[in-house]
Order: sequence, then structure tokens, then C-alpha cells
Amino acid sequence: MAEKRKKLAIIVHSGTLDRLYCAFILGSTATSMDMEAHFYFTFWGLNVLVKGGLEKAGLPAPYKHMEEKMKKKLEKMKYPTPYDLLKRMKASGLLKIYACSPTMEMFGVKKEDLIPEVDEIAGASTFLDLASDADITLLV
Amino acid sequence: MAEKRKKLAIIVHSGTLDRLYCAFILGSTATSMDMEAHFYFTFWGLNVLVKGGLEKAGLPAPYKHMEEKMKKKLEKMKYPTPYDLLKRMKASGLLKIYACSPTMEMFGVKKEDLIPEVDEIAGASTFLDLASDADITLLV
Amino acid sequence: MAEKRKKLAIIVHSGTLDRLYCAFILGSTATSMDMEAHFYFTFWGLNVLVKGGLEKAGLPAPYKHMEEKMKKKLEKMKYPTPYDLLKRMKASGLLKIYACSPTMEMFGVKKEDLIPEVDEIAGASTFLDLASDADITLLV
Repeated sequence: MAEKRKKLAIIVHSGTLDRLYCAFILGSTATSMDMEAHFYFTFWGLNVLVKGGLEKAGLPAPYKHMEEKMKKKLEKMKYPTPYDLLKRMKASGLLKIYACSPTMEMFGVKKEDLIPEVDEIAGASTFLDLASDADITLLV
Repeated sequence: MAEKRKKLAIIVHSGTLDRLYCAFILGSTATSMDMEAHFYFTFWGLNVLVKGGLEKAGLPAPYKHMEEKMKKKLEKMKYPTPYDLLKRMKASGLLKIYACSPTMEMFGVKKEDLIPEVDEIAGASTFLDLASDADITLLV
Repeated sequence: MAEKRKKLAIIVHSGTLDRLYCAFILGSTATSMDMEAHFYFTFWGLNVLVKGGLEKAGLPAPYKHMEEKMKKKLEKMKYPTPYDLLKRMKASGLLKIYACSPTMEMFGVKKEDLIPEVDEIAGASTFLDLASDADITLLV
């Protein structure tokens, strides 16, 4: 009898590079371990799902002066970008991306503005339903 | 036999409007789904429980320039304020609010300074007890 | 038959005093309640594990003006410092500290740069493994 797949549920509230990396590294490691990953993007996190948003994400203000150096280091390490990690998770078939509908209304973001990897536009009840059944729940 | 009610446990560490909305929308959606919501307010979060605190909450510094526009948009959407959401959760009978006692001592906040919706002044052990039995645990 | 020990798993992403206190108070309360505490330090959190880092941690920029007053108040309360709390947790035998290996590579931090309380240098899979079996999972 197959064991039930473990499940990781993350609310991505932040839109800064350090927090996106944190969420996406957890997520891509999870899917490589055959866990399901569910990402619910809200607030500043939702804004990086707008086409071009992931590429523009930088460090938060107090660490801004380290951004250039960090990006160069990551390039030298041939480290995947956040978008690369997201695509890798999607390719596993184990990632589901939710875009927060009230945030979209508040910021005037439309479905066609979002990257095509988004699976579903959903409210908080969708996240609560899946998270209450998850093994790990985090907010980034 | 009645199914056990699902339980959401959130530590509210932040006191900014974006994070309060995130916590309160999750909480009010949870109570509307007949889940219990337990909110443990600490640090900057505790400070917004001081009378008048919720009304003064704004966006964090890097997003400050968007605050006015966002507040107008929310008004136009007739979106409830954080305090409205908190009262709505309380009215459901499913929300319990804990104020962190060491934070109160540190900031010199007294019980009578807090809004009347606070249920209990408690230390971290109270949160850990309830969270270890919760279905979803988050820190905002 | 002995009951299984409860388990708290925290990702420490932040390196500011307010968030370190939040994590460490939860952790030291947990170990005093005979729970296991697992702390995975990444990003700015990893940087405070560098020798001397915990002592230098301060409040985030928007609250910087309150730092001096808060530190004095904590001293007057004879409140333990973050490093005191960490040592207390270690002394219980119930805390395990993980340092995020990709963060170390990115910031050029070596094993010998870290405080001796670190138990293991590990990637995200180590955290996901232990967190999927934990009772409380949080990101600070």
C-alpha cells in the first residue's frame, strides 16, 4: 500500500529576494524528495507573480547594499534564479501555485498579468483547507 | 460523533498593516469555516493591541509610499478594517486572543491599556501547548 | 509506554533582535516543557551564528530608535540575552542547531567561523525531514 505523500504548505507574503529564495529552496527540495508543495502567494508575494516580477526582486532596504555582491556570487555558484527554481518545481508535477484573489483586486492585478505557472486564483479558504492537511506549514 | 474542530494557531509578531491583514484574513476565514483561531500577540504585534493601535497600523517603511492609495482602495472595496475583522472573529466565538506577558513587561504595557477583546495574558508555554495540538501553525 | 516527546521546528531566517528573541523564547520555553527544539538557521539568521554575531544583533531599521531603551529595560529586568537563552536550551539536551549549507557557501562562512553550539551543517532536506514529523513548524 502506497504511503501518503507528505505535504508542504507555504504562504508567500514577502516579495524580497532573500525570502523568495528561502521559500523556493524549501519548495524545490521538497518536490525533489517527492513531497507536494503548495504555495499561496499574497500581498508583496503576489506582486512578484506579475510577469517580470520575479526577475526584479531584490533584497530588503536594510540589506540593499549587499544585493549586487550576492547576485554576482550566486551567478558564480551557478545557482538557479528564483524563476528557475519555480520552473523546476513545476516540472516535478508536485507544485501547485495559488494567487490570492483579494490581493489581486486590491492591487488591480488581472489573471493575464500573472506568469503562466499560476494554477489557481483562490481565497484564504483554499489555503486553509489544504494547509490543515499538510505536514509543514510556514509563512515567508 | 462530532468531528473535532480544526485549529489555526498564529503568532502575530508584526505590527504592520500588510501582515495584520494577512493574519486577520486567515483568521476570519478560518472562523467562518468553523475552525478555531488562536492568536498570540507578541512584540510589535502586542503593541497594536494597545487601545488605538490597530487604527494606527500602517505599511512598513519600504512600502510606505503605497499606504494612502491602498487604504483608499480598501475603502472603495468596502473592505473591513483590521479591527472590524478582529471583532467579526470574536463574534463567532471561535477566536481566542493571547497577549504576551514578557512583551508587556518589556514595553511597560498594562492590562487596562489593551483592547477589551484580549482573552488572556499569557507566556510562551500557553502558545506552545495549544499550537502543538493545532492543524496549522504560522508566524506573521 | 512513554509518550513521544513533542517537537518544535523553527527556521530562523531573520537576524534582528526582536525576531531572535521571539524564536529563542519559544525554544527555551519548549525545552523547559520537555519538548525537542530544532532550529535551522538560514540567510540573515545564519549570519548571527558567526562568532560575535548574536551579541551584535539589533532591532530592524524602522525600530532602531527604540533599541537602546529596550536593551536597558531588558538588563533591568535581568532578562537573559539571546546567547544566554541559546546556551540554556543547549544545556537541556533538547536543542539541535542546524546551519544552512548553501547560505554558508553564498556568504563565504566557514565551519570554524560559527559558534561551537552548532550541531550540524545541513541542507533544506534535513529540515524538511524533521519538520514533517514536528508538532509545530514556524519561520521567524
